[in-house]
Amino acid sequence: MKEIKGGVTAAKGFFAAGAEAGIKYKNRKDMAMIYSEKPCQVAGTFTSNVVKAACVLWDKQIVEQSPFAQAVVVNAGIANACTGSQGFSYCKETAQAAAGCLSIPEDAVLVASTGVIGMQLPIDKITAGVKKLQPLLGSDEAAGTQAAEAIMTTDNRSKQVAVTFTVDRKEVTLGGMCKGSGMIHPNMCTMLGFLTTDVSIEKSLLQEALREDVKDTFNMVSVDGDTSSNDTLLLLANGMAGNATITEKNEDYKVFCEALHFVNVALSKMMAGDGEGATALIEAKVIHAASKEDAKTLAKSVICSSLTKAAIYGHDANWGRILCALGYAGVEFDPENMELFFEGKEGRIQIFKDGVATDYSEEEASKILAEPEVRILVDMKMGQGEALAWGCDLTYDYVKINADYRS
Amino acid sequence: MKEIKGGVTAAKGFFAAGAEAGIKYKNRKDMAMIYSEKPCQVAGTFTSNVVKAACVLWDKQIVEQSPFAQAVVVNAGIANACTGSQGFSYCKETAQAAAGCLSIPEDAVLVASTGVIGMQLPIDKITAGVKKLQPLLGSDEAAGTQAAEAIMTTDNRSKQVAVTFTVDRKEVTLGGMCKGSGMIHPNMCTMLGFLTTDVSIEKSLLQEALREDVKDTFNMVSVDGDTSSNDTLLLLANGMAGNATITEKNEDYKVFCEALHFVNVALSKMMAGDGEGATALIEAKVIHAASKEDAKTLAKSVICSSLTKAAIYGHDANWGRILCALGYAGVEFDPENMELFFEGKEGRIQIFKDGVATDYSEEEASKILAEPEVRILVDMKMGQGEALAWGCDLTYDYVKINADYRS
Repeated sequence: MKEIKGGVTAAKGFFAAGAEAGIKYKNRKDMAMIYSEKPCQVAGTFTSNVVKAACVLWDKQIVEQSPFAQAVVVNAGIANACTGSQGFSYCKETAQAAAGCLSIPEDAVLVASTGVIGMQLPIDKITAGVKKLQPLLGSDEAAGTQAAEAIMTTDNRSKQVAVTFTVDRKEVTLGGMCKGSGMIHPNMCTMLGFLTTDVSIEKSLLQEALREDVKDTFNMVSVDGDTSSNDTLLLLANGMAGNATITEKNEDYKVFCEALHFVNVALSKMMAGDGEGATALIEAKVIHAASKEDAKTLAKSVICSSLTKAAIYGHDANWGRILCALGYAGVEFDPENMELFFEGKEGRIQIFKDGVATDYSEEEASKILAEPEVRILVDMKMGQGEALAWGCDLTYDYVKINADYRS
Repeated sequence: MKEIKGGVTAAKGFFAAGAEAGIKYKNRKDMAMIYSEKPCQVAGTFTSNVVKAACVLWDKQIVEQSPFAQAVVVNAGIANACTGSQGFSYCKETAQAAAGCLSIPEDAVLVASTGVIGMQLPIDKITAGVKKLQPLLGSDEAAGTQAAEAIMTTDNRSKQVAVTFTVDRKEVTLGGMCKGSGMIHPNMCTMLGFLTTDVSIEKSLLQEALREDVKDTFNMVSVDGDTSSNDTLLLLANGMAGNATITEKNEDYKVFCEALHFVNVALSKMMAGDGEGATALIEAKVIHAASKEDAKTLAKSVICSSLTKAAIYGHDANWGRILCALGYAGVEFDPENMELFFEGKEGRIQIFKDGVATDYSEEEASKILAEPEVRILVDMKMGQGEALAWGCDLTYDYVKINADYRS
């Protein structure tokens, strides 16, 4: 497996575009389209929130019932959530507009929205945007970047990654893009993520691979503990790599799953590191927990702790807050028999051992916490459970962004 | 039942004091003592955090095993958590010092600490503080206030309340004090709370009354989702009201429980409203949920949502975030069949109905959200479950306070 440049247009036969549709933002791209020249198998995971956006309901239907998918239309600015039956009819109108432009069936069009909850979409601007996007579709890296930029809301950076790997002696490509950056605490998947691949694989395996992988990737990310009504992760596979279709959990499937994991981890970290207002990515790694589930629970508790997040913003090695967050996670352990480390580019320092603080240097610890990627390593010394979780620091800017997001 | 002035010294036979011991803060009181001239029945609830402060371990032992309790020593500034066996021995030394001054048994002395986790207590200053406190003990309102001020950390206001009520034709008094204001997400009880009463009641009933009531009061408060290692709520009853001892769940017990609930609600609201950096108390009231448990889960989810908290700081009626927080709470419901209201001093406005926003006035909504007490009312229209939860807004000052708390 090799990382390459690009995102959703990296795989063969995929096109993308981004354009200004004037939905809510001024003077910036706010609509994106992804299109595959061949019909795709599609897998999707969606928010577990009881309050589901209209577009989530639409996409679930497409993923579960349509014979194939071939395009995705995304808008930023308005979430199309809590919009009742009118919101759902707007999904259909959006799909119809795209189906007309692209000469594909309406039920092959997925839609996704992100932004303010509760407002209705300006459907005329959306359908006009669809028509604007179609002639802009391109298969190069720049086209993918245009799309990745168009789906941003409070994100500071667009988020893309792509890899190539070999299946059945054929070169296969998998690429993706996603956006954060507030209301991020995915549960079954992330805010909005789009993955495209030219691998040939059966739909049920595609879905299983995605469903399993998000548990260790996007679902281990939290920016603010708020699980969105719009979380959507879609994976389109058009088979154009020409490999013998993967129909069982063989070596080819394993190679594909590894590539999928790499891409999802990369996007998850980008999303956490660019959380609203964030100055640092926080990675919590828990090792030797009694079980994998315990490790996940503990790791996630650390990256969700507001106090830990604020301390890291202040580059303050206030490790007691990390111990506290582990302690209230709901996992039994002996605080006297665990160890805590901070890890940075320059190395690792031990902070806690045998129930008390080590004689670490505050200055050295603070230096590690000032790096853009901070790793908290927790050794539970109980078993073989291991997990990673990703979050970000809590800053003035998070409050600023969210105290008046709608205006 | 009648609310009266005062706190822990309101009930007959209770004394209190606050003094400067120079533990961590400069030029302010940082140690408090409560003393009862008669031995007390004592009940306590403590943090559910696996990481328990040394003082929590000490107090659990006293509450469970000592025949009676008669004094409490509290320090602010250092939490005595994650301090190993040395931390526990300091609890014993503190109790010994108080026992000596007050001529009571060592195992009748409860201790409580709040502040930075991981540092050892300066035990010489603590024992000197105990000796300083004893001659300052007073039974008037001012003495109670001194104690309430001494236990503050980042609190802006001291928190006290007291009531009188009648049991067995005798006037009974119950008073209390508590402190917040960060790392507040009590689970089994609050950060630090101390209740004193002159009622005569059996220990097992006292414990049951306290244990049951915290579930609907302190455990329904959250400032930042972080459950502390030090949460402690103690209730001392010295029997000096002279009522026939309450030994069963009769009318007297009910009256006492009502008074206890009143005091706990008042303290809970004070704590939430004075959360770190807060400008407003947020009260979420859920009615007509399928069950009481559901109502509690939903109410707590709303007051814990960072995005909702930040929106209220901005006086922004971004109600979609409230719907979202209800949606990810883990309770099944139909978003099309519930209603949302904002309530302020001036009245109530409906925000959401039949799956979409009402035609409410943003200006009017923003005005309600600018009040110091904001009530969010959610009608689930499913059953008879009802609950209240209390939190506060998320502000720049929360980040400021916590980015560099230790220095």
